[in-house]
Amino acid sequence: MASRIHHVGIAVADLGQSIELYRSAFGAELVDRMANETEGLEAAFMRLGGTELELMSALREDSPVGKFLAKRGPGLHHVAYAVHDIVKALAEARAAGLELIDAEPRMGMHGGRIAFVHPKSAGGVLTELVEA
Amino acid sequence: MASRIHHVGIAVADLGQSIELYRSAFGAELVDRMANETEGLEAAFMRLGGTELELMSALREDSPVGKFLAKRGPGLHHVAYAVHDIVKALAEARAAGLELIDAEPRMGMHGGRIAFVHPKSAGGVLTELVEA
Repeated sequence: MASRIHHVGIAVADLGQSIELYRSAFGAELVDRMANETEGLEAAFMRLGGTELELMSALREDSPVGKFLAKRGPGLHHVAYAVHDIVKALAEARAAGLELIDAEPRMGMHGGRIAFVHPKSAGGVLTELVEA
Repeated sequence: MASRIHHVGIAVADLGQSIELYRSAFGAELVDRMANETEGLEAAFMRLGGTELELMSALREDSPVGKFLAKRGPGLHHVAYAVHDIVKALAEARAAGLELIDAEPRMGMHGGRIAFVHPKSAGGVLTELVEA
């Protein structure tokens, strides 16, 4: 069971420009920026109150984020909920009828365990669970 | 300047089913449900930690939410940031180069003042400011 929104994921065309936009227009603070070669993305985590924005740009056109940008353009990509115990949360998600992309938790970019829920079982919303 | 994410707006096909999904799978609590005839939508506000989810279904196919659903299907629709002073926030948003859908604040569904920023100036993200 989720406790709060952990972050909102946003696919962006230009990571540097987007960091500056969210800093200057909304007062979000950059807390981390890193490339993930496996996922083919570069991400910036920006804090705003008790929640973060994860801005993501594509390192390759054939990466998941690259394909998302090609198909839908930049915009809202996913929502992540913080859970205390991800193994328990995945069991509860299954019991609630959600289809999991990650049947088992895996390590996220911040070192904590994560898992994704398939958007087709969650009203079209790509949904992430983050153990935090 | 925003202080936190006020809510995440999600367009849904069936409001009742979606309320039940977010209640049972994620532990969100329904705090309000109302129709907005002017906007042609029905909305449910669900609390999760310090943030809310705004689930929106269309009352008419030619309403903004109806057109969104027809074009993109259900899914993430907008992000709203809480601001202390919306007049000041709109001036700051303009100064940061954002194009406003609402040049002047208007009343939102909860009685507080709101304004929308055009997605084309905010990286494809329909962005709302909420005075709270």
